[in-house]
Amino acid sequence: MQKRIAIIGAGPSGMAQLRAFEAARSAGREIPEIVCFEKQDDWGGQWNYSWRTGIDSYGEPVHSSMYRNLWSNGPKEALEFADYSFDEHFGRPISSYPPREVLWDYISGRAEQSNVRQYVRFSTAVRWVAFSEETQTFFVTVEDLAEKTTETTEFDHVVVGSGHFCVPNVPSFPGIETYTGSLRHAHDFRGAEALAGKDVLLVGASYSAEDIGVQAHKMGARSVTISYRSQPMGFDWPEGMEEVPQVDYFDGDTAHFIDGQSRRFDAVVLCTGYLHHYPFLPADVALDSPNNLYPDALYRGVVSEANNKLFYLGAQDQWFTFNMFDAQAWFVRDVILGDVLLPDASQQRANMDEWLTRFGALATTSDEVRFQADYIRDLLEATDYPMFDLDEVVRIFLEWKHDKQADILTYRDQVYSSVMTGTMAIVHHTPWLEELDDSAERYLATEAPDLSEKSAA
Amino acid sequence: MQKRIAIIGAGPSGMAQLRAFEAARSAGREIPEIVCFEKQDDWGGQWNYSWRTGIDSYGEPVHSSMYRNLWSNGPKEALEFADYSFDEHFGRPISSYPPREVLWDYISGRAEQSNVRQYVRFSTAVRWVAFSEETQTFFVTVEDLAEKTTETTEFDHVVVGSGHFCVPNVPSFPGIETYTGSLRHAHDFRGAEALAGKDVLLVGASYSAEDIGVQAHKMGARSVTISYRSQPMGFDWPEGMEEVPQVDYFDGDTAHFIDGQSRRFDAVVLCTGYLHHYPFLPADVALDSPNNLYPDALYRGVVSEANNKLFYLGAQDQWFTFNMFDAQAWFVRDVILGDVLLPDASQQRANMDEWLTRFGALATTSDEVRFQADYIRDLLEATDYPMFDLDEVVRIFLEWKHDKQADILTYRDQVYSSVMTGTMAIVHHTPWLEELDDSAERYLATEAPDLSEKSAA
Repeated sequence: MQKRIAIIGAGPSGMAQLRAFEAARSAGREIPEIVCFEKQDDWGGQWNYSWRTGIDSYGEPVHSSMYRNLWSNGPKEALEFADYSFDEHFGRPISSYPPREVLWDYISGRAEQSNVRQYVRFSTAVRWVAFSEETQTFFVTVEDLAEKTTETTEFDHVVVGSGHFCVPNVPSFPGIETYTGSLRHAHDFRGAEALAGKDVLLVGASYSAEDIGVQAHKMGARSVTISYRSQPMGFDWPEGMEEVPQVDYFDGDTAHFIDGQSRRFDAVVLCTGYLHHYPFLPADVALDSPNNLYPDALYRGVVSEANNKLFYLGAQDQWFTFNMFDAQAWFVRDVILGDVLLPDASQQRANMDEWLTRFGALATTSDEVRFQADYIRDLLEATDYPMFDLDEVVRIFLEWKHDKQADILTYRDQVYSSVMTGTMAIVHHTPWLEELDDSAERYLATEAPDLSEKSAA
Repeated sequence: MQKRIAIIGAGPSGMAQLRAFEAARSAGREIPEIVCFEKQDDWGGQWNYSWRTGIDSYGEPVHSSMYRNLWSNGPKEALEFADYSFDEHFGRPISSYPPREVLWDYISGRAEQSNVRQYVRFSTAVRWVAFSEETQTFFVTVEDLAEKTTETTEFDHVVVGSGHFCVPNVPSFPGIETYTGSLRHAHDFRGAEALAGKDVLLVGASYSAEDIGVQAHKMGARSVTISYRSQPMGFDWPEGMEEVPQVDYFDGDTAHFIDGQSRRFDAVVLCTGYLHHYPFLPADVALDSPNNLYPDALYRGVVSEANNKLFYLGAQDQWFTFNMFDAQAWFVRDVILGDVLLPDASQQRANMDEWLTRFGALATTSDEVRFQADYIRDLLEATDYPMFDLDEVVRIFLEWKHDKQADILTYRDQVYSSVMTGTMAIVHHTPWLEELDDSAERYLATEAPDLSEKSAA
């Protein structure tokens, strides 16, 4: 009987898995029966923006953490698909840091080209995944949220692509229960316009704090204070932005920091990261890991050690994104097709331990990027996904880091060459700091936009 | 073998179910084995306040919709337990409208008295409830969120007490995706302090809009605009508060109403109600109803028509609350104990149709209150829960409605006599509109509080 595969989530990872199987089918291979369950009404995962926060129209937790005026925070040349270039999609060069909608269009375009929408059951939430020891198969229970029907279906494999930047990690602080200003986690942040004229505190020192901080500054916040736990990001912040140590406690509208300073804030955004959370999986196979480059218990970063028929995509912290998900999806496909054979449990363990040892020894940012490049290379060598110049992508990442250090407000105006096609990106018609319209329509306009509709930050 | 009962949720309904069984046990009856699953780390349901919004510390949706400075919006004399009076709990008269923490203390006190905490598994989320046609039992899969373990256990009956004011109903409006002010549903509202000086729009015309409106006014909002869909609440609003028709669309920070008016708002709170949502139940037994006084497909308002071994507590829209949950819990207990026998399916259907016909003919608020009193009387007559003067509670509700119409800002200063004990409530030491500290400690202080710590609204 034909194998049956369940893919959970039609974000960039699930879409990569669909593309991987379709690529094999196009090449003449017989592929299994595939069903992809997506709780949202369209694909794209994080890139499928919703104005909603908390709970969606079906009563389910809102997935996306993105916000208005979110532009890529890394150069698109570092995330380009090796089998579907930006040139192929847009037909002409674009800038290196597109806004959200443009990247959504890019990943959606590849999936449409592969005609894989037919495999996706939208507005369908996975309720429970049970593995039967007897049949060695999964029984996946889903609810069609629009039709309000529940069904349970048997699958040989389950691929989890539900993401790990959708469930916020929300620490507590003494007094936070009576903090009187506006309070939310970055997951529920949808735009910085309302922060104009406000004193804003961001708790955290990673990408969310960095980007929401500059968004708030761009939109006219009176002050932006970023509170770090271990160490500051250390950018050359513009006037009105600064980093301070950890919050000790809140009192009314005032935050007190561990260095004894205190200040009142109109708004607090907790930029405190996300949890691995898989409420549809039994705890013994649900990945339980901090957000890092090598979560333990995943052979080759994708195969569940607890059950080799269960896979995770994109479970790592990410320098590489779309093309790493591709490498993982192609590898998982080949395991499912039997082209890649899994070693026994002890060999899997030894392999993971080797990588974990190396991961534990990483000292610098450059080390981290090279580690992830090597991880991807290891997967690509096992599959027929087009190998690409990973060293060049590492070089782009390091240049990007350098650009950010040089000027956190203007790094998105820089341009890079495509690793896949060699095409040089164009300088965007409007500097990022002055651009207040993040629509694809405006971004893709080639003529200089009417300046009267813009206002400088 | 001893029957096994799963109770989902340890809010007022689940706590009533625990009390009901314990009352039978105290009276010498043999009771089934009971396990109550509560995803929060304490009981009280809605009354267990959390400063968190959206997603909790375990990655689960936050349950409670309550906020700082929430005081009972109905007289406590209408919700008093017939088997555990306010006098018994507090040892002296208190006012008629206690703040949240005081009511939590009251319901918690009764449960502690019954020693039922032993039956509750806290921080435990119900993942899936499957009914086996073969064994005619339920297999309930739960996750211990703190221990990160999953287990599946067999039960003869399941009582759903998870509530239906915890999952927000969030309608969309054209342009809302780019509304630039602060936007949240009432479920995520935690206090009105930050609305001081702001122009605030509340969308909705029921209890949330009414109370968040007066909270915003009390805390110094510059203006409070309440947008109704069908008809205005029509209270004699103070200056700075008004009702307007439905929102047509948003544009930037401005709401346009269907009557052609438009106005800019700093903040919008969607007071648009809640959904019946039971993600742990198969759709064919998950109650699917608007929020009304007689959801269809529940015999006697509690027995699932689709599966008579499954029960719902508190699924109705509520004039009566705590003592109605008691009536339901005692009835469910007696069905489970075999003291109440269920009629066959057609008789159940005929009974529901009778009530539905009567429900459909209700014309006035008084009709509604009397309908729910009659519903409760019908249950109480079948059990040994102390019958109480339901007509007197109806009278209190109607007086309450009258008080609110007279002055929406001062109705909480009124006092009523206990239906259970005859005790007259005392006038609280501070008028509600001037009281900015909702702690139980301050509320229960009998001496006049230090006026220097107060500020008038």
